[in-house]
Amino acid sequence: MTLPLNPAMAATFPPPVMEARRWIEGISFPAGRPLINVSQAAPVDPPPLALRQALAEAALNDPAAHLYGPVLGLPALREEIAVQWSAAYGGAVAPSQVAITQGCNQAFCAVMATLAGAGDEVILPTPWYFNHKMWLDMQDVRAVPLACGAGLLPEPEAAAALITPRTRAIVLVSPNNPGGTEYPASLMAAFRDLARARGLALIVDETYRDFDSRHHITTGGRPHELFTDPDWDDVLIQLYSFSKAYRLTGHRVGAIVASAARLAEVEKFLDTVAICPGQLGQIAALWGMRNLAQWVAGERDEILARRQAMVAGFDALPDWRLLGCGAYFAYVEHPYPLPSPEIAKRLVREVSVLMLPGTMFQPEDAPEGARQMRIAFANIDRDGIGELFRRLAAFRG
Amino acid sequence: MTLPLNPAMAATFPPPVMEARRWIEGISFPAGRPLINVSQAAPVDPPPLALRQALAEAALNDPAAHLYGPVLGLPALREEIAVQWSAAYGGAVAPSQVAITQGCNQAFCAVMATLAGAGDEVILPTPWYFNHKMWLDMQDVRAVPLACGAGLLPEPEAAAALITPRTRAIVLVSPNNPGGTEYPASLMAAFRDLARARGLALIVDETYRDFDSRHHITTGGRPHELFTDPDWDDVLIQLYSFSKAYRLTGHRVGAIVASAARLAEVEKFLDTVAICPGQLGQIAALWGMRNLAQWVAGERDEILARRQAMVAGFDALPDWRLLGCGAYFAYVEHPYPLPSPEIAKRLVREVSVLMLPGTMFQPEDAPEGARQMRIAFANIDRDGIGELFRRLAAFRG
Repeated sequence: MTLPLNPAMAATFPPPVMEARRWIEGISFPAGRPLINVSQAAPVDPPPLALRQALAEAALNDPAAHLYGPVLGLPALREEIAVQWSAAYGGAVAPSQVAITQGCNQAFCAVMATLAGAGDEVILPTPWYFNHKMWLDMQDVRAVPLACGAGLLPEPEAAAALITPRTRAIVLVSPNNPGGTEYPASLMAAFRDLARARGLALIVDETYRDFDSRHHITTGGRPHELFTDPDWDDVLIQLYSFSKAYRLTGHRVGAIVASAARLAEVEKFLDTVAICPGQLGQIAALWGMRNLAQWVAGERDEILARRQAMVAGFDALPDWRLLGCGAYFAYVEHPYPLPSPEIAKRLVREVSVLMLPGTMFQPEDAPEGARQMRIAFANIDRDGIGELFRRLAAFRG
Repeated sequence: MTLPLNPAMAATFPPPVMEARRWIEGISFPAGRPLINVSQAAPVDPPPLALRQALAEAALNDPAAHLYGPVLGLPALREEIAVQWSAAYGGAVAPSQVAITQGCNQAFCAVMATLAGAGDEVILPTPWYFNHKMWLDMQDVRAVPLACGAGLLPEPEAAAALITPRTRAIVLVSPNNPGGTEYPASLMAAFRDLARARGLALIVDETYRDFDSRHHITTGGRPHELFTDPDWDDVLIQLYSFSKAYRLTGHRVGAIVASAARLAEVEKFLDTVAICPGQLGQIAALWGMRNLAQWVAGERDEILARRQAMVAGFDALPDWRLLGCGAYFAYVEHPYPLPSPEIAKRLVREVSVLMLPGTMFQPEDAPEGARQMRIAFANIDRDGIGELFRRLAAFRG
């Protein structure tokens, strides 16, 4: 007799990044053509030395760094986010409207668990972030695809047509994963108005906010005006990650900014699934926020320069078409008759490049997935980008 | 218009430990009678210096300590667990049968998500661990209470009578939280046989294994024989925590030991909710396993001595009745007419003692909860235990 298996879990697809990892297992790449891995959005270098020293100091001398803390996170970190967010977004965010999570994926799951149960519906623009789709699948919540239009932008009118009595939320990711697109402030306001009018939550995942070309610490530039609305917390739930800005992917620290009443529900989920976020990761995030603003600004400039190199590279590459580009990602259409998972495996074998096929970001019945690929270009420097394009030019499909 | 709220989440009770924390907020305890906090099972001291040094060294010099790792955990840690478990339990555990999680609560949630969805049922002996109940509630899975008999031991015959076509699993916690009881090996084998015969998963949470009086590293003593069954993984799913043994509560590291096929399903959950466990916590757990075996044995001896002090203390205290005692916990019946939450609040105000009321561990309709209290005595040394009993003796209810 076999053990029970939750049918919703059985129907959930396996982790795409782990599947892609298996495509490179056991392959020896030629010495002159090492692997270019643009499959996962992950810094390849550790955080700056000064941050590592602060972490080592805490590990040695701060007993609290090893012990349980509050479920919703370190008060000092919640406070720092509230202060910096209020300034950066031109609004009012209180510490009681901030919760810390073990990474931004967990932030999404925690929020969604408070909104939607089995049989409910959530609108996700496509191409979508696969972990969002996976959570909804394993919870038996229906992910309702909202196909993006030109420039990979979702359309509020199209979203409105998808709302049913079971709809609980609309999810936006800006800058987008996998599309790279920076959503215009006016578009985000239109989605906020739609969500508010229909009694839905608007979830805005800003994992890549620090690499948005419009986000400037010194000039006060910001990607949207959602927080300037004094009643923002009656509709908006923002998600954030410390992983990319400070290179803390291995520490798992993210955040939720939402109403205190929503966070009281989130607290039930986090207490049960996490008990508390890791202390050292929170200490690292706080240290980064207090000391690395200028360093992060330099990182953003570097990423934006890589983005320009990506745009120029695709301009010069015949047949491939760039659909979206920004933050960590270029999302492209390949010119070959084979479906994208086959192209991805052939790119590994023939030119030592690992990228993810569009099928991982599209519904099974969407034909676009077979034509599309995601390139996480932030992982390679400008020389690496040059080499990437030489290899794509040499690839015959 | 208010935002949607998942009714299952609304029906889930708030985190008991956080609620209890609020009972002591704003209270100034007399200088001569500081708070004795026996509410949460949490070491109060940091890990040994050598472990903290190893962590600091990794934070400074190991780039991988800051970056993403595999979803199911560091291969070296999975391997170490497989080797030590095989020896300690007298069975065969392979690295592919081990997964690392962000704490043992997450291990439970991940496993349960693969077993049960909305409308399914899971059998939990009562008094139960509140976070188990909370996960089932928020997932709309029915927690079926199995009232324990004498010595707080669950009875397989009583469990058999509760099985329906919707039952997916039976959960045992040994040594028990909140009851303290060490389940006899024969009882655990009987539950294994029942689960196997009825096609259910047997989940055994061994968070407190290292403080079980029968678990001896040097003599090979072990608390049960479940792993000696060559087919153990067709029914058994074991959960473990590194938090207590090495004082790593703030790092969130736990483990699941189960079939590789089950872990492929667990991987979907962990990828979505966690991406990967924190790297520094895993490094600490691995260092502890390789270097702290004798130190942990000394910790167990100390905890077992405190347990003796607790048993002796209740022997000498009129009217209170000790229902179970072991590992970190004493579970007791108080002698007063007021319900346990009122007693808990009065203990705080009148004798500066914080313990959790039995209502947090019992179904709402179970009258026992109002008479019972849980004391997490591992947090206080033998002097503290002496003081605890002086205060309980002085308390008038």
